[in-house]
Amino acid sequence: MQDNIKIFESIHTNHPLIHHITNSVTINDCANVTLCIGASPVMAHAHEEVADMAACANALVLNIGTLDPYQVESMHIAAKSAEKHDIPIILDPVGAGATSYRTKVAQDLIDTYQIAVIKGNVGEIGTLAGAEARMKGVDAMSFSGNPDQIAMQLAHATDTVVAITGEIDIVSDGNSIVFVKNGAETMGMISGTGCMVSSLVGSCAAVSSNLLAGAATALCAFGIAGEHAAMHAAGPSSFKIHMFDALANLTSDTLIKEGKIQQE
Amino acid sequence: MQDNIKIFESIHTNHPLIHHITNSVTINDCANVTLCIGASPVMAHAHEEVADMAACANALVLNIGTLDPYQVESMHIAAKSAEKHDIPIILDPVGAGATSYRTKVAQDLIDTYQIAVIKGNVGEIGTLAGAEARMKGVDAMSFSGNPDQIAMQLAHATDTVVAITGEIDIVSDGNSIVFVKNGAETMGMISGTGCMVSSLVGSCAAVSSNLLAGAATALCAFGIAGEHAAMHAAGPSSFKIHMFDALANLTSDTLIKEGKIQQE
Amino acid sequence: MQDNIKIFESIHTNHPLIHHITNSVTINDCANVTLCIGASPVMAHAHEEVADMAACANALVLNIGTLDPYQVESMHIAAKSAEKHDIPIILDPVGAGATSYRTKVAQDLIDTYQIAVIKGNVGEIGTLAGAEARMKGVDAMSFSGNPDQIAMQLAHATDTVVAITGEIDIVSDGNSIVFVKNGAETMGMISGTGCMVSSLVGSCAAVSSNLLAGAATALCAFGIAGEHAAMHAAGPSSFKIHMFDALANLTSDTLIKEGKIQQE
Repeated sequence: MQDNIKIFESIHTNHPLIHHITNSVTINDCANVTLCIGASPVMAHAHEEVADMAACANALVLNIGTLDPYQVESMHIAAKSAEKHDIPIILDPVGAGATSYRTKVAQDLIDTYQIAVIKGNVGEIGTLAGAEARMKGVDAMSFSGNPDQIAMQLAHATDTVVAITGEIDIVSDGNSIVFVKNGAETMGMISGTGCMVSSLVGSCAAVSSNLLAGAATALCAFGIAGEHAAMHAAGPSSFKIHMFDALANLTSDTLIKEGKIQQE
Repeated sequence: MQDNIKIFESIHTNHPLIHHITNSVTINDCANVTLCIGASPVMAHAHEEVADMAACANALVLNIGTLDPYQVESMHIAAKSAEKHDIPIILDPVGAGATSYRTKVAQDLIDTYQIAVIKGNVGEIGTLAGAEARMKGVDAMSFSGNPDQIAMQLAHATDTVVAITGEIDIVSDGNSIVFVKNGAETMGMISGTGCMVSSLVGSCAAVSSNLLAGAATALCAFGIAGEHAAMHAAGPSSFKIHMFDALANLTSDTLIKEGKIQQE
Repeated sequence: MQDNIKIFESIHTNHPLIHHITNSVTINDCANVTLCIGASPVMAHAHEEVADMAACANALVLNIGTLDPYQVESMHIAAKSAEKHDIPIILDPVGAGATSYRTKVAQDLIDTYQIAVIKGNVGEIGTLAGAEARMKGVDAMSFSGNPDQIAMQLAHATDTVVAITGEIDIVSDGNSIVFVKNGAETMGMISGTGCMVSSLVGSCAAVSSNLLAGAATALCAFGIAGEHAAMHAAGPSSFKIHMFDALANLTSDTLIKEGKIQQE
């Protein structure tokens, strides 16, 4: 847990800049959740500026939730710049497996750049790992296989950290596996929790090269915020408000006391 | 009311996938309101994938609130695919009448595809029905004519169900008319209630071919949620939170007890 | 304060239409904040319609937060139309100084059109005034110089009103300076307060040619709403809800009693 606390505190001290190229559905939530954890969000996608913006950021979050060819090109320009400047790239392959276009775009990004962390649900990660997965829009429907193995396999094959969100979150760097058991059921009733977590993973990756601990820290902090929110919420919308507030109010002490990170 | 309850419950059982091509102002609200009623939202507009996404959805919602030529082409590709796969298309002609471009785009969609439900305010529907209507941005300003007749006339001419939102909502399939008398004044003080209703209409159309009952169910459920929210809200923003929570907590029992759907 | 009250009340009486071409991060907040102050928002960016939409609006708000070449062209078409129809143009040069593209786009708009009000943080306004300013994404990092002088200098050089937001807001028309001392610290913890203020500045400019008083009114009203919200909020997200509610509930009386507008 020591590494996680160090990462969490470092975000609050350094306010890293997180450059997002992301979907239009949850872009506001991603900006606000980034602020809640102590980092600073910036969104930019113009081909004329993405290389510059990525170069001065501390992490680059690519989210294909409402992709189109212009934005995909933005992602490539930004990723090239990020790679050149040693800035970690986080990929959220939203809906990979739902259409062949999404699968191909995500695969291309993984094949072309050294991604730091790939974060998705079991259907998305399963699709990218070549397993048999079925998606319904952006939700995982069915999946044949062992998620732990899939995470480790994709992480190993791509030399990244892979995070699979679910009732129990799974993070692997290809060698070890970490489980994060924080979270609340209501998180599935609001749009964009997956996107928000990617912003938090970006915030953690921005301050530490320990990406396994970083991804786990993000998932744990967000999960605890969800647990706190669930105690007060009257429905999914007030839940979301409480969750953002709880994340902003989260301290290292609470992270230590309530975090359920378990390394295998 | 029996049909409405059946539709309402079927959404919660089947979680239909609602493919949106919609505006950037209220896209997050549309996603969340779709989840609140028990359906599953997906947003996609890339020409490379909209046909695929529409084909695996249970309804397609087209909303022209922040249209541009790229997105209009997305709508045509998706609508063609939806038609081919017998998936109901819901059209929200946001701002039709405000600029000739919006009017033309909405008219083209209606002329080219078999739309299932057209939902708008009296200015938008009046414009599309050829009546004298005046718009101020996306709000109806003045309107000369009888809304009931306009709804019935446009529904008859286009073989669709037409819904006009207002203090009393009007739904017509060209033969009969249904009035929905639920709702709260504060709904007019937040952006996007019209867009949200279209997502709900899409959710209802996704599970039942009884489109008249479906549109009425959506309007009634949303109206009741608004009534509940009005009892607790301290202003428009907390009203919105309460309304989403109320919609997510809505049961068949409450729909039966509080629904004010009246068939002429 | 009399001018400010008159402007504030005129918005509630006339419900001016505010045409936004703005970023996708805070577009929903801008729409809702515009409604909260009693004006009517419309968002449109298609080249086919922006001239028409701007022509029937009462103010045009240009915000470059997530600009791209298509949108920049939208801004030029709309600005040309607004100028032709004597409609005030408000420019929010989000991130000017962060990338050379943003700086250039903002500078071009200022050079080409008669802007009514330019509103930014000290880094953005400093950049446009040719001072030495450093940006970190869309946040001002460091700034060498006197903000009062910078505001007055840019206002004088461009014949506009310039507003610099900060702990104390500064407004200048090139001759006099007005300070607005309302506000709350938490406003910096949510994304988009700057964008929201620009919508309010647009709402004020839409009803009065006294742009100095208008910009101050917007900043003051928003600041008071923030102060009220800070008394009740449990974190940044509930703060935002309270702030919107407070703005919608704001009366002339409260504005008189609590407004801290000070003319030099």
